[in-house]
Amino acid sequence: MSQEDTALVLFSGGQDSSTCLAWAVDNFARVETVGFDYGQRHSVELDCRMEVLSAVRRAFPAWNRKLGDDHLHAIPVLGNISETALTRDTEIVFAEGGLPNTFVPGRNLIFLTLAAAIAYRRGIRHIIAGVGEVDYSGYPDCREDSISSMEDALNIGMESDFILHTPLMHLDKTAIWHLADHIGGPELTDIIIEYSHTCYLGDRNTRHDWGYGCGHCPACALRAAGHEGFIEQTVKADKATE
Amino acid sequence: MSQEDTALVLFSGGQDSSTCLAWAVDNFARVETVGFDYGQRHSVELDCRMEVLSAVRRAFPAWNRKLGDDHLHAIPVLGNISETALTRDTEIVFAEGGLPNTFVPGRNLIFLTLAAAIAYRRGIRHIIAGVGEVDYSGYPDCREDSISSMEDALNIGMESDFILHTPLMHLDKTAIWHLADHIGGPELTDIIIEYSHTCYLGDRNTRHDWGYGCGHCPACALRAAGHEGFIEQTVKADKATE
Repeated sequence: MSQEDTALVLFSGGQDSSTCLAWAVDNFARVETVGFDYGQRHSVELDCRMEVLSAVRRAFPAWNRKLGDDHLHAIPVLGNISETALTRDTEIVFAEGGLPNTFVPGRNLIFLTLAAAIAYRRGIRHIIAGVGEVDYSGYPDCREDSISSMEDALNIGMESDFILHTPLMHLDKTAIWHLADHIGGPELTDIIIEYSHTCYLGDRNTRHDWGYGCGHCPACALRAAGHEGFIEQTVKADKATE
Repeated sequence: MSQEDTALVLFSGGQDSSTCLAWAVDNFARVETVGFDYGQRHSVELDCRMEVLSAVRRAFPAWNRKLGDDHLHAIPVLGNISETALTRDTEIVFAEGGLPNTFVPGRNLIFLTLAAAIAYRRGIRHIIAGVGEVDYSGYPDCREDSISSMEDALNIGMESDFILHTPLMHLDKTAIWHLADHIGGPELTDIIIEYSHTCYLGDRNTRHDWGYGCGHCPACALRAAGHEGFIEQTVKADKATE
């Protein structure tokens, strides 16, 4: 990558992609964002997405100057294909293999291919996705071998030279909080706490020290535990330097 | 493949995918079909799609028994992303690299990924696409290396064991007419001539011996030349056996 290049960030408005957004503006000259509306149960996610983007623009003028177009595309086909909890009012359960019934097979492959088509049209080479192997809930298309294989398929199928960046690939949720803190300090982690959305149930009424959410669904549990680890380690580090 | 397996055919209602449909019912125990409405300029294509399917069902009772669900999904996102002639009322031109401005980057990658998601949900392992390297108009995602690389990406990203079949990969349009004739005889080639649609301009008024179409656009030109070659070779073969 190069400080002269443009990057396209897959930005959903969650903790992970908000951290990726910061990583992108920290590493590239210009950053565009793309999001997909695939019939999420809670339009709150799409609202949060715009709020994170606005808050980042307000809090970081240097990043604001780097941020370009935001592309939002509706892809109801994913909801149509799948009978999954993320797109319907059914309960989230976990199958024996560890895969939640929120599993939309190949969802990230679709997102990456559409992002690559947009990047192709806009002459952008770098694509950034907040997927990772650590807390991936068993989604195979979040893993490094899947991303690497998709990069090949996109480059051959579009005769291109895309680079797929996955800065969170080997980070757990605690490390992701640390990364955001490292890039943007408490201004950024506060934005992520306040505006980014994670909760599967779309709860924006219950406030915790790690943000809003029901506090019980798998996504909230991961976010809360990660934040707790981050705070513990930060306090420990502060004490060590006292 | 096995005569006991089910296959999913990417079926658009054109000459190529109609031939693939016949190849599928000839080779598999059960066949489902999937089509995508991505804002084609001419809904005539979707009408022809249903007409080919109905005509095949009527003409071939044995195939009719093998044909299962047809899945039709709207994906307007492709039209939204792209400024291309296939989805807008602009003229079709060819860029210097040989790629028509109908080029929707990675269009077949999207189709294959969505088809694989459907196949995953339905427990289908075999996916059949009518793409080929010979008359591919410069679309890189029609080539064998692209399909093979996409097969890898889908299998890794969905933890699956899909096989992507591309029976037309190395056939020119004349050979594709021969393949249809070989599988279904004149009953099938007549159906393809009468109902399958190829013309970029959506012309269903002008009848030629190879079917309906403007007769001038690149798609008509390919179809017409291929059919001419097929008739010439068939006449020559008939004379040789007289």
